[in-house]
Amino acid sequence: MRRAIALAARGLGTTSPNPVVGCVVVDAEGNLAGEGFHEVAGGPHAEVGALREAGERARGGTAYVTLEPCAHTGRTGPCAQALIEAGVARVVYAVADPNPKAAGGAEVLRAAGIAAEGGLLADEAARGNEAWLTATRLGRPFTVWKYAATLDGRSAAADGTSRWITSAESRADVHALRATVDAVVAGSGTLLADDPHLAVRDAAGVRPGRQPLRVVLDTRGRIPAGARVLDDAAATLVVVADDLAPEALSDLHGRIAGRAEVAALPRNAAGTGLDLDALGKELYARDVRSVLLEGGPTLAGAYAAAGLVDKVVGYLAPALLGAGPAALGSAGISTIADALRLSVHEVVAGERLGGDIRITAYPARPGDESAVESGTHPVKES
Amino acid sequence: MRRAIALAARGLGTTSPNPVVGCVVVDAEGNLAGEGFHEVAGGPHAEVGALREAGERARGGTAYVTLEPCAHTGRTGPCAQALIEAGVARVVYAVADPNPKAAGGAEVLRAAGIAAEGGLLADEAARGNEAWLTATRLGRPFTVWKYAATLDGRSAAADGTSRWITSAESRADVHALRATVDAVVAGSGTLLADDPHLAVRDAAGVRPGRQPLRVVLDTRGRIPAGARVLDDAAATLVVVADDLAPEALSDLHGRIAGRAEVAALPRNAAGTGLDLDALGKELYARDVRSVLLEGGPTLAGAYAAAGLVDKVVGYLAPALLGAGPAALGSAGISTIADALRLSVHEVVAGERLGGDIRITAYPARPGDESAVESGTHPVKES
Repeated sequence: MRRAIALAARGLGTTSPNPVVGCVVVDAEGNLAGEGFHEVAGGPHAEVGALREAGERARGGTAYVTLEPCAHTGRTGPCAQALIEAGVARVVYAVADPNPKAAGGAEVLRAAGIAAEGGLLADEAARGNEAWLTATRLGRPFTVWKYAATLDGRSAAADGTSRWITSAESRADVHALRATVDAVVAGSGTLLADDPHLAVRDAAGVRPGRQPLRVVLDTRGRIPAGARVLDDAAATLVVVADDLAPEALSDLHGRIAGRAEVAALPRNAAGTGLDLDALGKELYARDVRSVLLEGGPTLAGAYAAAGLVDKVVGYLAPALLGAGPAALGSAGISTIADALRLSVHEVVAGERLGGDIRITAYPARPGDESAVESGTHPVKES
Repeated sequence: MRRAIALAARGLGTTSPNPVVGCVVVDAEGNLAGEGFHEVAGGPHAEVGALREAGERARGGTAYVTLEPCAHTGRTGPCAQALIEAGVARVVYAVADPNPKAAGGAEVLRAAGIAAEGGLLADEAARGNEAWLTATRLGRPFTVWKYAATLDGRSAAADGTSRWITSAESRADVHALRATVDAVVAGSGTLLADDPHLAVRDAAGVRPGRQPLRVVLDTRGRIPAGARVLDDAAATLVVVADDLAPEALSDLHGRIAGRAEVAALPRNAAGTGLDLDALGKELYARDVRSVLLEGGPTLAGAYAAAGLVDKVVGYLAPALLGAGPAALGSAGISTIADALRLSVHEVVAGERLGGDIRITAYPARPGDESAVESGTHPVKES
């Protein structure tokens, strides 16, 4: 199953709106017979690839799958049926399928006399499929907040300069992270101040045509005609408030000149920005299952305040500024008891990130404390 | 030598104003014959302890010492002489002694026909003796800035609450860190806002009578009579500006009532606080070789601006606040090119720190980048 999880991860960034899935088939004697993973939406499912490789050796064998095999026919036939036809004796899957359209695969298998068991390495497999599982469960994209800051939490110096707080290696790592999501979201503050490009560099190995959608939250439709996000490196969606005056909207379309789609959504209750729940639904409807927030402190604060941050990836540069904007803006938290508590999942340090530190964390759940492993990482001995 | 460095570390926090030193003596056949370390100022030096343990087996053997053996008679006799008398054939030391009063041990040994070589594991041994070496070189205490903050760099929430940002384990770790320094420094802002105690808890294993000196920078002499730092848990030095009015000084003495010493020092050039160079000299004269800054953002900013921070130890809690005071106050840095760049030495994460992350860093020196080792630390798999 661990091998199946590793195989599944190869599909990250290209299977959406489908999940990532890996499958390993062993023959009746327990020898590896076939491997497969879901590579791209519309392409063959993991089980089909593994069964094809195993051929006759699958008969009487066991299939290990990271996700409960589907029982429905989408763009490809149901995998449960393929497993039955291949004659496997047993199917072990990690995570049950939460998608009501596709679930029920285990029952189909059992009805055909195949032993089907779920739950093996379920936590690990679920982590590998976190975006799709969360999005499917909640009907909105899995949301990753990425930030870069100094050790004292500044995302720029007092004069606004921020090139470069983090290392070239960290910035390359961000491109690789972008390549795994379906959309990148930025607010108009960042757009106007930094004119970011928001596309994935070729070097990050993004598949042609799989550039994440660039989403600009531009409540008042102020995006300039020369904004870099309006180039043809990737598709762009400009989201404005639905109370934008017709002339302003017409102006906006004039500036965009067909280089981006425009969507109008309601404002949030406070009227300070867009309704992020409505945005989530809109993006989900556009097959976006994961988004990366690259939008600056205000946008991040709004997402945190709405409880919509599912994962935090922080790049900390070993530098101190003592002044300048903070990485996270107001999230409506005024006292320490209300702090948004996280649980650290991974810390990466050293030359791989050019001396920076990358911290990956998730909102804390009860009981997380006891699951934390300890460790010292001597970054440098000199 | 690695063993000698480990032995030396046992003296941390109790040898000041002396260095930490470890010594391993092997006999002529290369077998371990004796070990020793400098445990407490005034007590036997490392070499003497190791030679005593080795006895006659030292004759013709080799002594490994972390620091060049001293050639002067202080409270104890010169170690170079002891090595000569013990009849060792060879002395290998890591770091040359920068103390003009004590240096020259290697020459004394050579003059007596003993092979004396320096430089083995010098960087590692120097790191273990960083406080004493830096203080001896610069004539001011080695200065460690310790801070606690959320991942977004806040040291308290918007309403000022900060209990507790970090875990109980991290707070215990801070006590252990305090136990290794000669003095703890706090500013009057922190004193008035938090009324900190600044003593080391017994549980941290501080040696009786070795509590670090509590230093309060109280430019205007505002310390209240009931301040916790005025109790008898440790000695306290209240430092005021030397332009304090006589009545204010007299008032201050009345409030302190003999429970702390008072020192008057010049203000800094801007007049905003005390002259930190003068403070360093004053503390050095009081045999303080290392200080821990626990003083809040303003004090830390002043030290950083003056280029007086020698080491940074940050405790990052996996939490987000989005508002509240920053961990580091103004350090006179306005643009990214002037950021105080550090080099990360160690990252500790996990249950040992209750889920927090501890980052240890030093001001970057040219060439540091290439010395950084890479590593991923999976804090948690779930």
